[in-house]
Amino acid sequence: CCLAQKPGNVSSPNIIIMLMDDMGWGDLGAFGQPSKETPNLDAMAAQGMLLLNFYTANPLCSPSRAALLTGRLPVRNGFYTTNGHARNAYTPQEIVGGISKDEILLPRMLKKRGYFNKIVGKWHLGHRPQYLPLEHGFDEWFGAPNCHFGPYNNSVRPNIPVYRNSRMLGRYHEEFKIDKKTGESNLTQMYLLEGLDFIQRQAEAQKPFFLYWTPDATHAPAYASKYFLGKSQRGRYGDAVMELDYSVGKILSLLRHLGIDNNTFVFFTSDNGAALMSGPSESGSNGPFLCGKETTFEGGMREPAIAWWPGHIREGTVSFQLANVMDLFTTSLALAGMSPPDDRTIDGMDLTPVLLHNTVLDRPIFYYRGNELMAVRLGQYKAHYWTWSNSWEELKKGINFCPGQEVPHVTTHEQKEHTMEPLIFHLGRDPGEKYPISVLAKEYQDVLSWISPVVEKHRSTLVAGIPQLNMCDVAVMNWAPAGCEMLGKCLKVPSSQPSKCDWPH
Amino acid sequence: CCLAQKPGNVSSPNIIIMLMDDMGWGDLGAFGQPSKETPNLDAMAAQGMLLLNFYTANPLCSPSRAALLTGRLPVRNGFYTTNGHARNAYTPQEIVGGISKDEILLPRMLKKRGYFNKIVGKWHLGHRPQYLPLEHGFDEWFGAPNCHFGPYNNSVRPNIPVYRNSRMLGRYHEEFKIDKKTGESNLTQMYLLEGLDFIQRQAEAQKPFFLYWTPDATHAPAYASKYFLGKSQRGRYGDAVMELDYSVGKILSLLRHLGIDNNTFVFFTSDNGAALMSGPSESGSNGPFLCGKETTFEGGMREPAIAWWPGHIREGTVSFQLANVMDLFTTSLALAGMSPPDDRTIDGMDLTPVLLHNTVLDRPIFYYRGNELMAVRLGQYKAHYWTWSNSWEELKKGINFCPGQEVPHVTTHEQKEHTMEPLIFHLGRDPGEKYPISVLAKEYQDVLSWISPVVEKHRSTLVAGIPQLNMCDVAVMNWAPAGCEMLGKCLKVPSSQPSKCDWPH
Ligand SMILES: [Ca+2]
Ligand SMILES: [Ca+2]
Repeated sequence: CCLAQKPGNVSSPNIIIMLMDDMGWGDLGAFGQPSKETPNLDAMAAQGMLLLNFYTANPLCSPSRAALLTGRLPVRNGFYTTNGHARNAYTPQEIVGGISKDEILLPRMLKKRGYFNKIVGKWHLGHRPQYLPLEHGFDEWFGAPNCHFGPYNNSVRPNIPVYRNSRMLGRYHEEFKIDKKTGESNLTQMYLLEGLDFIQRQAEAQKPFFLYWTPDATHAPAYASKYFLGKSQRGRYGDAVMELDYSVGKILSLLRHLGIDNNTFVFFTSDNGAALMSGPSESGSNGPFLCGKETTFEGGMREPAIAWWPGHIREGTVSFQLANVMDLFTTSLALAGMSPPDDRTIDGMDLTPVLLHNTVLDRPIFYYRGNELMAVRLGQYKAHYWTWSNSWEELKKGINFCPGQEVPHVTTHEQKEHTMEPLIFHLGRDPGEKYPISVLAKEYQDVLSWISPVVEKHRSTLVAGIPQLNMCDVAVMNWAPAGCEMLGKCLKVPSSQPSKCDWPH
Repeated sequence: CCLAQKPGNVSSPNIIIMLMDDMGWGDLGAFGQPSKETPNLDAMAAQGMLLLNFYTANPLCSPSRAALLTGRLPVRNGFYTTNGHARNAYTPQEIVGGISKDEILLPRMLKKRGYFNKIVGKWHLGHRPQYLPLEHGFDEWFGAPNCHFGPYNNSVRPNIPVYRNSRMLGRYHEEFKIDKKTGESNLTQMYLLEGLDFIQRQAEAQKPFFLYWTPDATHAPAYASKYFLGKSQRGRYGDAVMELDYSVGKILSLLRHLGIDNNTFVFFTSDNGAALMSGPSESGSNGPFLCGKETTFEGGMREPAIAWWPGHIREGTVSFQLANVMDLFTTSLALAGMSPPDDRTIDGMDLTPVLLHNTVLDRPIFYYRGNELMAVRLGQYKAHYWTWSNSWEELKKGINFCPGQEVPHVTTHEQKEHTMEPLIFHLGRDPGEKYPISVLAKEYQDVLSWISPVVEKHRSTLVAGIPQLNMCDVAVMNWAPAGCEMLGKCLKVPSSQPSKCDWPH
């Protein structure tokens, strides 16, 4: 019946990965959000599979996205830093590094099987020319290389460019407005139209396609278009969610309308947990889980996830499989009838047996900050080897990754080592990581002797990649992106001042 | 089309109220529980209406149940204490008081319209003879007057009796086993069979019935029968939930099988929030809400709620109506074609327009502890006039109603008065009550001037009932319940030592 078993017999399905930005596990009606404002996503879940144990690879945008597209942990693909112990790092516009040419991204693989690939939205794997999407297998791009922060003073700090393919079209806060006061922006509508247009063109061309649809309206500052502003019970963040939900509905409708729904695999998820430090109007919900973005507690790394493929994935199913964004790499390849590269370690696994037959396969989930293995999940158990939310110094400044949640000895404000005696939680009984199992309990010892060899094997065989997120330089900022001359939008490049990036948490 | 509009034209439907004990808002799959182990309740929601803003009248068993059956706030119907300020009180077996003969309970009203009424499970409105269910309009009872604590030493403290109708059948931990070590008990199965048998008998008799089905398996110590023990991903509490879910499925199936589903209104809810102080194996989840049982934060008082009535309530609907257990009184009467008593204040409102047409009506929700109005909700806003979780003294003993949640100045351990300047939250943006709106914001002043007159009117017109939960006495305990002679189970009654009950929180 299914592609995974007989890849040769069926044409490769189209693949759409919808990756949200900082959306939390608890933000969808189907995942328990009390305002239930996501009818399209809830319907998508009812028509497909809800994955309740789906994870990102890192609690921050860039490493998460690098992991998704390479099928590899950030510590392997280079999307981490060694500036300080166990630090989160990403790609602000001062970053010197980006995704290495040595990494093989999903679109580059799919291209070999005739897929036509587009990214719509945020890239975040480096903004210098060699790191951009079209250098890594995408055929088209509409979106930005960095977050939509701003507006910036263009002499000290340039606004982020928006690209069409390999050239800039304009900049955020200049040609592409985001009203900081009202939160109004038409970007999600643009991303929706770009997606719809691409799907329609590919359907007409009858060529398989890969659409990586990654709007960033739910990343602070949250934005929505005029029609959605004020529509939510949840404030501006909720407005953004409603517009994304609407957009997902439009995309699925178009697939049906074009008659390609049975031949298109769609996966919806988010790049990291809700950014609780941004406050209630600008951030989402991690449901029953502890803390959020930036942390390796469940709130930082467990993601909403829905798989949809009418006629292939049975409707209304729920999977408890431990899975993660890197599996989307391997799974997409499997759907295309391909194996992952065999010259490197791939962390993603093929989820097609899960999707098509709802099997459950044993496997660990690794939680990293920088190159430090902070925690591991196996079955219902999670062992923390290190705990840290952020420093006392940052907390005193009001930066709080766990607002209203303080679990003594767990949400620590020092980097606390537990490698000799990990903190162990049962995530079924205790999804909020509030009740460490007593080290004196037999259960603790049993779990430890089950998890330890898995961790030992992972640690001892791990070969870290070259860290890409160590160096920063004002000279590499988006002063003069490709295409700026035609638009008259090139800015003066300051002299190079490379230095180690400062990653405070 | 509907009963509420033309009560004379349609025969009165059967009414089933399923009231869970200490089950939390977040315990059902449909409300976001990450183990999704309630397929029958989730199906019930899909076939009926999910109410996301449904409240109890008090964060503790007895007052909540008294409110449901009288349609009146505990401060009116006497189910409160004045021993100390803002204390929660219930009916342990030392309690002298109970539900007053002056209160008119739902079954007494329904009886006048020919309903036959049964309570299955926990009563908790007083265990002395004059307070028992058959004295207040129920025709049948199988269950216990108090919680299933124990086992007790029968000379210092008797085990709680289990009644059939007006006579005891045995006692918990004696004839009715609850294995404290394994958590095994057949009580939920017995409650299920009692319910099924009653429904079948009434269907055969073709008489309208009211079934108040109130099993207590989710009250600590949680219990389940052998088949369900160990089945959940969530430990013993989850096992209890699974058995209740199974039972709900069986009851709805029987209604369908008997062909009376279109003529039976079923409402599922819980008496108060999850009892977080009982720990992860013995307590449920309040989803995204703050704290739990015993508190007037959302976790203490917002309840899971599902209304089901095939052919009348449209399937798959979601209501945002602010509603509460007292509305079940007025709504049940409306379904039976009756008006509530007009000689007293009734706090419940008729929800039939909500259920049948999904209208939303403006109304406040009042949050009480004892006779103190702690908070009020109007629309999305909630104003706290007093905050308190519990005392420092209790907290130091390890009793924590908000484990892992500490919101500075909100989850206070002193009774903190805010009557002049209430703490105001927007529950849409901030369901977790973590971000009080600044008193300097215009929004704060607008909300305050909207809520204040409502509160003022409520306060100034409130006539409190005589408090029933002030006095305790060892002599009133379940030493010699009716029927004990026949069973040879009468215990020696000690001499009376009345004193004020101690309500520490
Ligand atoms: Ca992100
Ligand atoms: Ca209760």
